[in-house]
Amino acid sequence: MSGHNTTVAVFGPGLMGGSLLMALRARHPGTSLRVWGRREEALQHLRDRGLADFASTDAAQTAQGADIAVLCVPVDKLAEVAAAAAPGVGPECAVTDVGSVKANVVAELERIFSPDRNFVGSHPMCGSEAAGLGAARADLYDTALCVVTPTPSSRPEATRVVEDFWRSVGMRTISMPAAAHDRAAAVASHVPHVAAAVLVNLLEDESTEAAAMCAGGFRDTTRVASGSPELWTAILSSNRAEVIAALGKLGDSVAAVRTLLEREDTPALRDFLARAAARRGQIPATP
Amino acid sequence: MSGHNTTVAVFGPGLMGGSLLMALRARHPGTSLRVWGRREEALQHLRDRGLADFASTDAAQTAQGADIAVLCVPVDKLAEVAAAAAPGVGPECAVTDVGSVKANVVAELERIFSPDRNFVGSHPMCGSEAAGLGAARADLYDTALCVVTPTPSSRPEATRVVEDFWRSVGMRTISMPAAAHDRAAAVASHVPHVAAAVLVNLLEDESTEAAAMCAGGFRDTTRVASGSPELWTAILSSNRAEVIAALGKLGDSVAAVRTLLEREDTPALRDFLARAAARRGQIPATP
Repeated sequence: MSGHNTTVAVFGPGLMGGSLLMALRARHPGTSLRVWGRREEALQHLRDRGLADFASTDAAQTAQGADIAVLCVPVDKLAEVAAAAAPGVGPECAVTDVGSVKANVVAELERIFSPDRNFVGSHPMCGSEAAGLGAARADLYDTALCVVTPTPSSRPEATRVVEDFWRSVGMRTISMPAAAHDRAAAVASHVPHVAAAVLVNLLEDESTEAAAMCAGGFRDTTRVASGSPELWTAILSSNRAEVIAALGKLGDSVAAVRTLLEREDTPALRDFLARAAARRGQIPATP
Repeated sequence: MSGHNTTVAVFGPGLMGGSLLMALRARHPGTSLRVWGRREEALQHLRDRGLADFASTDAAQTAQGADIAVLCVPVDKLAEVAAAAAPGVGPECAVTDVGSVKANVVAELERIFSPDRNFVGSHPMCGSEAAGLGAARADLYDTALCVVTPTPSSRPEATRVVEDFWRSVGMRTISMPAAAHDRAAAVASHVPHVAAAVLVNLLEDESTEAAAMCAGGFRDTTRVASGSPELWTAILSSNRAEVIAALGKLGDSVAAVRTLLEREDTPALRDFLARAAARRGQIPATP
């Protein structure tokens, strides 16, 4: 992505898509931006802000002439929007998405974009509990990690274009199989989300004083629980098998800590907490 | 606490005690500050910074002449330091602590300070995963909540002095029985800490890519897991019964979410996440 004479089509101007348009406009003013959205009102807003050279509610038309098409709709809407866009996607156009789950998504979208196989899945890891165009910002992708998940049938040229694209908006990229991504994402993101929601819902049985006592630690621990219920239902459902497995491990581990307390096994409890503190300290501030 | 001619004795110049000295010096320059610590080096540092008018490794001597004595050592060291200070605590001196657990602590310290019953337990809810004097700051207590836990045998005058004291460093105060505090603290603080540690330790079974994928959400959710293992072992052990009960609820709730995914019960999963998002939104930014 040199930014010169490049045309990017963005499908879905929410937090991810809107931020992508802002980042591209700021970093590569020469890039032509084409935007598909469901609501004409949002599209007009983008035109008014100079974030769309072409904007339409027709997905196939939006795809026309694009060098890269980026699907920025929720996981459970990807197949529908991909199918609508596909007739307009040219043979040289690379296609990617921003879904938080990859195995199911990649299988579905490879089918839709075969036989050209120009689709390569991506997961830019820079969401937020906020959603929508109103929360979009030009630096959302800055320095964050993007996981790219090519398959044996991906065209190497398309993979290269997709990786270069994410780096052109400031991301670091890493490549791994979709299944490995989903297993890791279950532990790094999906199960922590469930844990945060569970912790918040434990307050349902407690006094109002307990809610008043939810200090800074609780607020940080549960911040992600404010995320869109619709979006997260789709993510958890799409990564069902890995989330079920990781929730099983979470439950086992919670039960193990409970047993340590019941046995008053102070050394083992301290060891458990010390391992967590040491490992937490190794997680880089900018991942 | 007008700050005029008042003498405050602080036991333990770590994060809590050090921040308290800084807050008192900044807000009430007329207050005389007496400090007990284990290490002469830390005491000299306090003298050099003008944060101690008297500093000693002798607890009883430090307590002499104080209007209020504040025990700022970890929960499992409170009884030892209280017993050492008690001979120097005058009949008019109010005594409190900053322990995160109250029922056991209050029972022990009421025994040590009987028959005068000038002890009233406190839990200023403004810790941090950082520890030690180096992390202390003058605004740690600002606008945070302090739970004060008088018992039927507490002297009302001592309760009033302790509540006024916390308000004099900028805190809001709330009063409740020690047992109610401990039940609420298990859900608002202790179990979230265990959950954060469990989530971090789940990474032990994962690839290095999984750790690399721990983005902002994971870092926030697990921030508290960086807390001192020794401090948290003492807290969890001291609030054992309530933490065991709340960990049981946490485990049940994790298992329930897992069952929803196994059954592909999408509406119930969405309802669970929506309840959490709504309740999370009600938790005030400054508790």
